[in-house]
Amino acid sequence: MASNSFGNIFKITTWGESHGKAIGVVIDGCPANLEIDESEINAALQLRSPGNNPYTSPRKEADSVEILSGIFEGKTTGTPISLLIRNCDSDSSKYEPVKNLLRPGHANYPYLEKYGIFDYRGGGRASARETACRVAAGAIAKKFLMKFSIKIVSYITQIADIRAENFSERIETLQKETLQSPLFCPDPEATEKMIAKIEQMKSEGDSCGGVVEFFIDSLPPGLGDPIYEKLEARLAYALMGLPASKGFEIGSGFAGSSMSGSQHNDSYIVVEDEIRTTTNYAGGIIAGISTGMPVIGRVAFKPASGIMKARQTITVEGEEAIFRLPEGSRHDPCVAIRAVPVVEAMVALVVADALLMNRSATL
Amino acid sequence: MASNSFGNIFKITTWGESHGKAIGVVIDGCPANLEIDESEINAALQLRSPGNNPYTSPRKEADSVEILSGIFEGKTTGTPISLLIRNCDSDSSKYEPVKNLLRPGHANYPYLEKYGIFDYRGGGRASARETACRVAAGAIAKKFLMKFSIKIVSYITQIADIRAENFSERIETLQKETLQSPLFCPDPEATEKMIAKIEQMKSEGDSCGGVVEFFIDSLPPGLGDPIYEKLEARLAYALMGLPASKGFEIGSGFAGSSMSGSQHNDSYIVVEDEIRTTTNYAGGIIAGISTGMPVIGRVAFKPASGIMKARQTITVEGEEAIFRLPEGSRHDPCVAIRAVPVVEAMVALVVADALLMNRSATL
Amino acid sequence: MASNSFGNIFKITTWGESHGKAIGVVIDGCPANLEIDESEINAALQLRSPGNNPYTSPRKEADSVEILSGIFEGKTTGTPISLLIRNCDSDSSKYEPVKNLLRPGHANYPYLEKYGIFDYRGGGRASARETACRVAAGAIAKKFLMKFSIKIVSYITQIADIRAENFSERIETLQKETLQSPLFCPDPEATEKMIAKIEQMKSEGDSCGGVVEFFIDSLPPGLGDPIYEKLEARLAYALMGLPASKGFEIGSGFAGSSMSGSQHNDSYIVVEDEIRTTTNYAGGIIAGISTGMPVIGRVAFKPASGIMKARQTITVEGEEAIFRLPEGSRHDPCVAIRAVPVVEAMVALVVADALLMNRSATL
Amino acid sequence: MASNSFGNIFKITTWGESHGKAIGVVIDGCPANLEIDESEINAALQLRSPGNNPYTSPRKEADSVEILSGIFEGKTTGTPISLLIRNCDSDSSKYEPVKNLLRPGHANYPYLEKYGIFDYRGGGRASARETACRVAAGAIAKKFLMKFSIKIVSYITQIADIRAENFSERIETLQKETLQSPLFCPDPEATEKMIAKIEQMKSEGDSCGGVVEFFIDSLPPGLGDPIYEKLEARLAYALMGLPASKGFEIGSGFAGSSMSGSQHNDSYIVVEDEIRTTTNYAGGIIAGISTGMPVIGRVAFKPASGIMKARQTITVEGEEAIFRLPEGSRHDPCVAIRAVPVVEAMVALVVADALLMNRSATL
Repeated sequence: MASNSFGNIFKITTWGESHGKAIGVVIDGCPANLEIDESEINAALQLRSPGNNPYTSPRKEADSVEILSGIFEGKTTGTPISLLIRNCDSDSSKYEPVKNLLRPGHANYPYLEKYGIFDYRGGGRASARETACRVAAGAIAKKFLMKFSIKIVSYITQIADIRAENFSERIETLQKETLQSPLFCPDPEATEKMIAKIEQMKSEGDSCGGVVEFFIDSLPPGLGDPIYEKLEARLAYALMGLPASKGFEIGSGFAGSSMSGSQHNDSYIVVEDEIRTTTNYAGGIIAGISTGMPVIGRVAFKPASGIMKARQTITVEGEEAIFRLPEGSRHDPCVAIRAVPVVEAMVALVVADALLMNRSATL
Repeated sequence: MASNSFGNIFKITTWGESHGKAIGVVIDGCPANLEIDESEINAALQLRSPGNNPYTSPRKEADSVEILSGIFEGKTTGTPISLLIRNCDSDSSKYEPVKNLLRPGHANYPYLEKYGIFDYRGGGRASARETACRVAAGAIAKKFLMKFSIKIVSYITQIADIRAENFSERIETLQKETLQSPLFCPDPEATEKMIAKIEQMKSEGDSCGGVVEFFIDSLPPGLGDPIYEKLEARLAYALMGLPASKGFEIGSGFAGSSMSGSQHNDSYIVVEDEIRTTTNYAGGIIAGISTGMPVIGRVAFKPASGIMKARQTITVEGEEAIFRLPEGSRHDPCVAIRAVPVVEAMVALVVADALLMNRSATL
Repeated sequence: MASNSFGNIFKITTWGESHGKAIGVVIDGCPANLEIDESEINAALQLRSPGNNPYTSPRKEADSVEILSGIFEGKTTGTPISLLIRNCDSDSSKYEPVKNLLRPGHANYPYLEKYGIFDYRGGGRASARETACRVAAGAIAKKFLMKFSIKIVSYITQIADIRAENFSERIETLQKETLQSPLFCPDPEATEKMIAKIEQMKSEGDSCGGVVEFFIDSLPPGLGDPIYEKLEARLAYALMGLPASKGFEIGSGFAGSSMSGSQHNDSYIVVEDEIRTTTNYAGGIIAGISTGMPVIGRVAFKPASGIMKARQTITVEGEEAIFRLPEGSRHDPCVAIRAVPVVEAMVALVVADALLMNRSATL
Repeated sequence: MASNSFGNIFKITTWGESHGKAIGVVIDGCPANLEIDESEINAALQLRSPGNNPYTSPRKEADSVEILSGIFEGKTTGTPISLLIRNCDSDSSKYEPVKNLLRPGHANYPYLEKYGIFDYRGGGRASARETACRVAAGAIAKKFLMKFSIKIVSYITQIADIRAENFSERIETLQKETLQSPLFCPDPEATEKMIAKIEQMKSEGDSCGGVVEFFIDSLPPGLGDPIYEKLEARLAYALMGLPASKGFEIGSGFAGSSMSGSQHNDSYIVVEDEIRTTTNYAGGIIAGISTGMPVIGRVAFKPASGIMKARQTITVEGEEAIFRLPEGSRHDPCVAIRAVPVVEAMVALVVADALLMNRSATL
């Protein structure tokens, strides 16, 4: 029910608005005795942070986390972990002039319809700033998963209509090459073209979309819960809850609809005493449960709504008007890039939860 | 947590295996005083039922529902509604010879890994038979939504690589034309080509995939709950939990990733005193909340795993083997068709729940 | 949210009205590979069943359960277990004449206020008949707990103002002596006096209350989840949800309020290499978590509302009237007796759930 | 599941340890457009705060709350409200010498058994300090309930073996007289005797228990959800989750077990066009649903475990030892007094939640 919480056993609750005093997350259900250090969480936040990267929003977010509870002598205690991130660089005066306009593609109209009130400063609760909390919580989930040798990486496979096509399927290589690209794209050639595209969008005051792929390595078979808590359903739920996401695929995805069963059915074989499949159109999940093969999926992001170009709209009173992002506003030419660490974090949260839920499958 | 339940306030719990005595669903949280008749539920089941249609599985499922509780003098009482559907035509002996094979693309291997035991008869709990319960519950959700003039239709827009391209965006026309097609495809020309393709698959003992679109009409603005219960996230969760689904899109979907913000941002206008948008790339949802525009999305289905063609695999002991569906087994050349009423039902369940949750948004 | 479900991981959902076709329960989250036989569930139902016992309601409830799903080759499969109990002996015509009266102490008025509709036949959903489903589910929970040598017994310690005072604190003796008493009271002397009291109430057409105690043996330390899921809070939640319950105690209970800390603090000692306490005022739980000592608590039941004696009331239209149970109605002089196996079942469900939740406490 | 959260729609999540940096609470699901001011929350905290009162712990807790999110221009926005309370006066060095002892009646042993790690400083997460967060959240729930004229008061009715016997049943008088007593006891004569008792316990370094009663006025009929979410079950769950609580009663409670049905059944009458009952043994709830009569119940608290008197125990290694609270430790001679505002807060949270859940009972 609680719409600001995610997870069953490994559960997070986030709070905070873009231009309020702070944002934060409470992680409940993380098992005891896991070593956690603030620096590990901050390293994860750094990857998401804008201002580091010429291709994302110029907002400076130092985004350093303060651990307020749940850690004792460097380890989790089984009690809730409260993380606080103070907001800085949050001058909201520039949003005043447009506060009475319905912003095309933006949260303000639906929020006003729902609640009758909207903290319009920087998008308030609907700001992508909230995703910093997901990344912080995800860092802890990833630390937990490392205890079971489960690794996750996510990366850009498309920006606008440019597709990454040449990249490794070995997790270590993928992780390395992703971090080498300023766009988190493991295909260096595609990266070049994408940079050009983003530069163009930036100069035009426009924005472009993108696709983020995730890859889960060494996930044991048997995770995920039929019927309504299927692993792919949980992943879709987690990722379609990200700002600006418009599509989700697991394994063959939409392309799988054009295949025949005789192509799509992955044959089982034994490789070095482990059960594997010859192909992996399933994407590592069958009937909602992991098969032991890599889990691979994708999320489509639309172009961000906040652009400099003028757009026809109306005021809250229904009069015609023109909306354009105020001078000096942050403008993010491609939000998909910043979504990369967020996708990774959400996938980690889903998998950590599935791992704990699976402890009750048998006697 | 409970993986056989779906929904927050309007909540269903399903149970039952393909070849057990019966399947059923308990609907908890349906408001009191809604008129419900068994015949309405049976009519919905009829649309999903195989055996009616030369293009789907030959299994005969009379699928008539028995209401066991929750209705008094023709109306809901606020107490749980229990629906029972007896299984007939469920000879399971034919599955005996293949019970020790890992079936490519099928649930048996991951279930065995998870639980150490699997009711292999007809796919057991993992059978698409479970979706009859979703359809029965969805019929009640749709009845509830009718009280608020909210209508839902779903239909085939792709089978194999054949796409439906010409169809109405008016709900009444869409509903009518969908029901006129034996494949639930509102484009008659495409229907012809799709039929030919399915006939071909059938004769080859193979299967093909497809895409189902859903369309929600007259949904008021303000439904859906940020941050983790966004309306599109709930829809994705519901629909990626369907057997054989591999992808989900809302509005522009994956195509939206190739668009620019200046294209994608739907402009607000006033039409006949109502706030509308000039385009609807958002698909009727922004920031997780409905905008009052039609909600449009899609689900991709892979080809069914159960085919007559031989496929390389291994036994549970790890020895090489050949799997093919036993002679006389049901073979469904395109499960996407049977998924059409199931998609509609799940969408209805999500919307009914969102409507009730929204009652607590304001004082 | 769903008010007809109970439990987090080991979860039940019940449905059905007293005079409908059937009642039933779906058990979701029971681990796979547990041997279950219908006869075990029926044996548990037999203990609760009225008509066996001259001191409870004369309603004949054969109460034989049909397992509809979730068991394969005699074992649980991890999928939901659906249990069905058909209603028989459910002539409801006798309730017609009083259907427009507000029954003192009965569910009809509050249900009408809440839902605007009430299935008045035999109390509808509010009937204690629903507790048969709890007992059936509890039988499975107890079977699961037996795998961990955890045993539960409940018994009468008070009827009207007569208290049981001499009984064993050894689980085996308690179980044996409880079953030897027609009132489930392990103190034979008190049983005699209680029988006389019940006979008197019966002849006067009146009813009396009682107290049921529960005793959990061999519960390992560490079960229960702080802060809001404390083990005693879960037990109170489970047991205050029983029809007619008005009070709950754990350990010292209300008497503990009159004690001093120096008396109440149970000292730790080592006995045969196990950590024990010298006294057990805590009742086996401290700070919401089990200590390894026996868990002991009590539930107070009011006298049943359905009596033959006339009582002043009003009609639904607000006019003065006299209510008395119609001739030939079932009349239960002491519902506390029939509550004994229900208390045991609910305690088993709470403990099974706590045991599974505890699997996620540590890495 | 998440054991640090409470509520279905109006939901709180608390975090923080006694001697950590801070404690806090996130309130999710509070309807939008409710006016909230920090000073209102601080006023509620002030009542719970120790150090104000010679009869409770000398710990100084300024306990001033900082609102970090969810309020915009003085009103709730429907987004989560994050409240932070910094810890001061939290020198934990005095706990060092006893950290390896199993403290009789205290949380440390069961926490160690469960998690294998325990933040022993001041009781860590198990400290009653956590209840400050409940009070802060409860202040917001009470503000919400005021919109519907629902009022709640709680007060001491027993300390050690001294009972309050003469007090009003009018809410305004009760509220006034409760606040006039330093022990929150509305009976001035009993207050005198209780003060003497507490002074004695204090001088002996011992502690005593007590009973807190709550009274809900003007609660409309129809709130509460059968079968497992009965209003009294939710109240019991909320209140048996408080530190040191050992018993719960609604209406007649344990005394009701000694009554006959002909006494206990409250007769309906019409008073000034409203349906009332002549007596109120039900305590304002029948079959889990409110009747419109005042809801009255009680919670029993044991004496606090932290006393100066020596007590036999063992070390974590199992060796015999003596435990006594270190010199200079805070010692609370009667925690029941400090529990009064906490009971009120938890009752408010339960009622606010029930009010919102009830919005979905009918079409």
